[in-house]
Amino acid sequence: MAGNSIGQLFRVTTFGESHGTCVGAIVDGVPSGIDLCEKDLQYDINRRRPGTSNFVTPRKELDHIKILSGVFKGKTTGASIGLLVMNHGYNSDEYNYIKNIYRPGHADFTYHKKYKYYDYRGGGRASARETVVRVAAGAIAKKFLLDYHNIIINGYLTQIGNIKFNAPNILHIKNNKFYCLNKNKIYKLKKFLNTLKKSGNSVGAKIKIIAKNIPIGLGEPVFDKLNADIAHALMSIGAVKGIEIGEGFKFANMLGSNSRDEIKPNGFASNHSGGILGGISNGQPIVINLVIKPTSSIKIPIKTINYSNISVNLSNNGRHDPCIGIRAIPVAEAMLAIVLMDHVLRQQIQYINK
Amino acid sequence: MAGNSIGQLFRVTTFGESHGTCVGAIVDGVPSGIDLCEKDLQYDINRRRPGTSNFVTPRKELDHIKILSGVFKGKTTGASIGLLVMNHGYNSDEYNYIKNIYRPGHADFTYHKKYKYYDYRGGGRASARETVVRVAAGAIAKKFLLDYHNIIINGYLTQIGNIKFNAPNILHIKNNKFYCLNKNKIYKLKKFLNTLKKSGNSVGAKIKIIAKNIPIGLGEPVFDKLNADIAHALMSIGAVKGIEIGEGFKFANMLGSNSRDEIKPNGFASNHSGGILGGISNGQPIVINLVIKPTSSIKIPIKTINYSNISVNLSNNGRHDPCIGIRAIPVAEAMLAIVLMDHVLRQQIQYINK
Amino acid sequence: MAGNSIGQLFRVTTFGESHGTCVGAIVDGVPSGIDLCEKDLQYDINRRRPGTSNFVTPRKELDHIKILSGVFKGKTTGASIGLLVMNHGYNSDEYNYIKNIYRPGHADFTYHKKYKYYDYRGGGRASARETVVRVAAGAIAKKFLLDYHNIIINGYLTQIGNIKFNAPNILHIKNNKFYCLNKNKIYKLKKFLNTLKKSGNSVGAKIKIIAKNIPIGLGEPVFDKLNADIAHALMSIGAVKGIEIGEGFKFANMLGSNSRDEIKPNGFASNHSGGILGGISNGQPIVINLVIKPTSSIKIPIKTINYSNISVNLSNNGRHDPCIGIRAIPVAEAMLAIVLMDHVLRQQIQYINK
Amino acid sequence: MAGNSIGQLFRVTTFGESHGTCVGAIVDGVPSGIDLCEKDLQYDINRRRPGTSNFVTPRKELDHIKILSGVFKGKTTGASIGLLVMNHGYNSDEYNYIKNIYRPGHADFTYHKKYKYYDYRGGGRASARETVVRVAAGAIAKKFLLDYHNIIINGYLTQIGNIKFNAPNILHIKNNKFYCLNKNKIYKLKKFLNTLKKSGNSVGAKIKIIAKNIPIGLGEPVFDKLNADIAHALMSIGAVKGIEIGEGFKFANMLGSNSRDEIKPNGFASNHSGGILGGISNGQPIVINLVIKPTSSIKIPIKTINYSNISVNLSNNGRHDPCIGIRAIPVAEAMLAIVLMDHVLRQQIQYINK
Repeated sequence: MAGNSIGQLFRVTTFGESHGTCVGAIVDGVPSGIDLCEKDLQYDINRRRPGTSNFVTPRKELDHIKILSGVFKGKTTGASIGLLVMNHGYNSDEYNYIKNIYRPGHADFTYHKKYKYYDYRGGGRASARETVVRVAAGAIAKKFLLDYHNIIINGYLTQIGNIKFNAPNILHIKNNKFYCLNKNKIYKLKKFLNTLKKSGNSVGAKIKIIAKNIPIGLGEPVFDKLNADIAHALMSIGAVKGIEIGEGFKFANMLGSNSRDEIKPNGFASNHSGGILGGISNGQPIVINLVIKPTSSIKIPIKTINYSNISVNLSNNGRHDPCIGIRAIPVAEAMLAIVLMDHVLRQQIQYINK
Repeated sequence: MAGNSIGQLFRVTTFGESHGTCVGAIVDGVPSGIDLCEKDLQYDINRRRPGTSNFVTPRKELDHIKILSGVFKGKTTGASIGLLVMNHGYNSDEYNYIKNIYRPGHADFTYHKKYKYYDYRGGGRASARETVVRVAAGAIAKKFLLDYHNIIINGYLTQIGNIKFNAPNILHIKNNKFYCLNKNKIYKLKKFLNTLKKSGNSVGAKIKIIAKNIPIGLGEPVFDKLNADIAHALMSIGAVKGIEIGEGFKFANMLGSNSRDEIKPNGFASNHSGGILGGISNGQPIVINLVIKPTSSIKIPIKTINYSNISVNLSNNGRHDPCIGIRAIPVAEAMLAIVLMDHVLRQQIQYINK
Repeated sequence: MAGNSIGQLFRVTTFGESHGTCVGAIVDGVPSGIDLCEKDLQYDINRRRPGTSNFVTPRKELDHIKILSGVFKGKTTGASIGLLVMNHGYNSDEYNYIKNIYRPGHADFTYHKKYKYYDYRGGGRASARETVVRVAAGAIAKKFLLDYHNIIINGYLTQIGNIKFNAPNILHIKNNKFYCLNKNKIYKLKKFLNTLKKSGNSVGAKIKIIAKNIPIGLGEPVFDKLNADIAHALMSIGAVKGIEIGEGFKFANMLGSNSRDEIKPNGFASNHSGGILGGISNGQPIVINLVIKPTSSIKIPIKTINYSNISVNLSNNGRHDPCIGIRAIPVAEAMLAIVLMDHVLRQQIQYINK
Repeated sequence: MAGNSIGQLFRVTTFGESHGTCVGAIVDGVPSGIDLCEKDLQYDINRRRPGTSNFVTPRKELDHIKILSGVFKGKTTGASIGLLVMNHGYNSDEYNYIKNIYRPGHADFTYHKKYKYYDYRGGGRASARETVVRVAAGAIAKKFLLDYHNIIINGYLTQIGNIKFNAPNILHIKNNKFYCLNKNKIYKLKKFLNTLKKSGNSVGAKIKIIAKNIPIGLGEPVFDKLNADIAHALMSIGAVKGIEIGEGFKFANMLGSNSRDEIKPNGFASNHSGGILGGISNGQPIVINLVIKPTSSIKIPIKTINYSNISVNLSNNGRHDPCIGIRAIPVAEAMLAIVLMDHVLRQQIQYINK
């Protein structure tokens, strides 16, 4: 069944496989009158692009975004926006070795069982390749949120393996390929990732996304709570396996008396709730944590089965990211932006004072 | 904007406030021919009901579920099913003291700012009272899943404060008001909850929900991944602040080599993934963790503001649950059931072999 | 599959069978701050009610509407609004004679074949009884449209059998049970309906609905054109078999040169288009025609089959409306109001001028 | 707001303007395992193409359809299908003369007032150019309906001006550019269209669409009736201003006794209802009439206003179709196919017999 769309008023629909000719999207519900050009989208596309450091996959993805419709003389017209990114620099032959094999930790098994006809090359539709156009659509949302509502979204690494980052210098991350706050831990991180790479292994990561300057009132009762829609959007990213709002799982061991946010005439005294109360934004920063599982395509062999249910040994001797969590950050930012723009539009009329 | 519906093919829409005359739901998309009566729904309604032990709120909720339509001579007809539960045993006067006050940790602030007109009595629409009909709708889904697909859903406590439960005797929980696996820890738990109650405080909780006998193939690419829809549904429960699938946040410190699930000819060798690969169920049990924040309505005073932005002191001297996490378990089970039934229906036609 | 909901931002979901205990609806997406009470809805409920003249079915439907939620101290709160009308004054035994018989022209055949389990009493879910709550939901929309946008919706008869009404005195229809513009033709109409009643026959009708004071800009490209959504809503009324916008089918024999509406600095010179251009309202009155087929439940016998595929003779010796088209008018007005309110809400943000 | 999608389980989303680089669509919800190639879609694309006779616009549209995703080794994979048609052979300069002018009968006025930023070239998003991808998506639906359900959809002309066609030789229309049943009236038709062309005028048309071999049970109560969804889909085609099911507007002057369809053990004795009872298909052919208004872009001048609200004279001295109704036929077939495929998928599980 149709599942390639997200959002109500700001609605993104995508298509495209890892080793097809292209990936693309239709972005519907963008108000007219917004200045928009391809350069606006290319910036985040580049941040997501592989090959930007020694520790992300060296597949060369040129990834030039094309706007096919919905913009006229530099302004959005209110029409649906077609987006396209051609696929380049891949070699489908690389994937012949997995042609009839279910790679553990990947969607091969479930897609093949569900659909019978499966584009195995690079994971086909289940590949992280589809996130390129999420990032492009998210860039439209980010621009709208920033230009018209001053909302800023930033993501950064908080943990890789047992290395944790928590220093508060958020400015630092702008020119930092690791989206990492602790300059002094980068050496340690690089060393760890180098070791992983040599051993052909991978590791998970924990990410924090913060959205600032949020208006009060985003989110709808009962099922379309802002946190519910955020959880949905972020969990739809391939490797995400957990999500927290505010204190998240720490709440299990917190008391009511120290987990409430006192309200003062000039605002909240703390932000345990992560910016959302009763499913609706309270004006404080929205604070989200999420976890990315380690990629399963590594050199270390594992047993699995082929389409004929015969045991085989599998190891990926091609390139791989030791930590896909790094590249997941602009994708997570994009998904949060898509949800926030949707709810900003949904929030237009809520009460009548006549 | 409309946000009181959930699901695509199995679709639940709800209404009703904590201190209105009733709460209700319309359940749409139930196939015809299913044996259904009110007793089928009452069982889970009773499990959710307050007053079942010394540690849940003593508000007397009789909570008799009424089926108003969609069933004829004991069988569903395919028509939409109207559900109604009358509200009894509440005293709205109790809430006069919060009439113009934003209770910290509650939705008062956000609802009032968003809508201007706010039914403050017991939280109105934002009250956990609305979960009664979630449980009723979920009971229809549970029955469908069990009777026609043999799918079983069970939730239980895994943590309250720093007390953790992890023994595997799932049978034990059936007649256990704490949905708790470790019989020997119940004494400790009761003592802790008693202390909390006396001090007028509350605590959070961590819950595990497991669904067994899941068919392969539930879930849709790209945005309607099964885990994304589960995250959405569970995060829409008032006090839930985090959700994990499988190993969840543990993945941040796991290596690729030990987080993949090896596939053998007779099935998976482990279940780190929590039963979902690429957003689609792989036939293993679906394993979900979620965290419930402590209730904010406690006797311990806190500073807040009233509608006129003046500082006031607030304490709740009425009854309260020391741990709402206990009563949240049948609600979480219901939400998981609603998502699974929706995806079972969405999975009807996926491939054609002619 | 779920099909009991209509609308995007203003969303109505209904339940209830003709001979069940009640019919009801949940109306979602109503902005807060609107004055609303049951009396506001009762007016149109009464207009739809049978037994108001000699020519509509004498079934006594008291039809008292109840608002169950979403209104607090006389104002909408933004929460979903539960609506309920109890069923009274019916006698299910009357329907025993059709228990296993497919009534020609009714939904018995298709519902029974589709669902196998069928509430045959009075048509069950397929009965026109479900339109009571359409009228109630439509009354909320009408009130919103009138109070905040000055939009007025009026329906009236334009044809019954070969009697056509076209005089323009719209004020006259307010106290006219036939919603008919030509006072002098009412005698002729009464005579015709009396004859039909005596012969146990029925007749179809043509209805015109006009909405005035429409803002420019309602409707969305490409598939959610205002006329497309209107056609959907009106065609979802049981007996409607055709719909026209503006000149409608007359366009087949019109030339381009005399079917365009000239635009002058002070507005359009004509309204062939019926108030909609390119799927978007142009500020002129929206003019809709629709046709209602004659009811099939008449005294004149017809051959049909029973559930066992055996031929039987059938005649309805109970009461019936000689022309259900009369009572369909408030229902059609309600459906148009529902669509217009939905699009007024959808129109909130369309362009940005910053 | 987003309005560029149609369908629930079979869902089509489109983008593209008349004079942009391309038009395209994403078709979501196609089951896997269907043989599909571009040639399958090209056939209907060619039928819709202008320039096929002397009486349709000579704009040269090469219109090669590209399938960008969702098909692997000739079979659909269940992934969303990207479709693209490049725009060729247009000259945007032709439209400079209408740059600041509202063309009567077109969407210029409403789009410009609604969105402020308007791609005036050839109507932009409001152009009939967007129907190319409707036809492509419809061709996927037609193939599915024919190959797996033997459903056949045919449209033909029944009226142009005062020339009516009603002979039953449906086979004849296959190689007939006018989709016309009466060979002997084609001479008369050609003569009429030639006269129109010379005088720079245009005319409307009436079209009939018939779908055969329909299974019993398509359509959902209450608002998603099959006829309601068909009316929505067909009314979303730019120039359609009326739609009828079965006898349609003739019902206004029919009696109950001669408008019901008698049911015999071997089927219905007539088809006044047009194949749908209570919103659900009854197994008889679905019979739809629709009317297309004459194009407003003709040589005969008309007064209108420009963006500054100043009166101007306007005449279109470029090419135009004397009757766009002819080219609308494959578009109408496509929209009916899209609705039927959606409902075939929605009909998968309706009752349980266990």
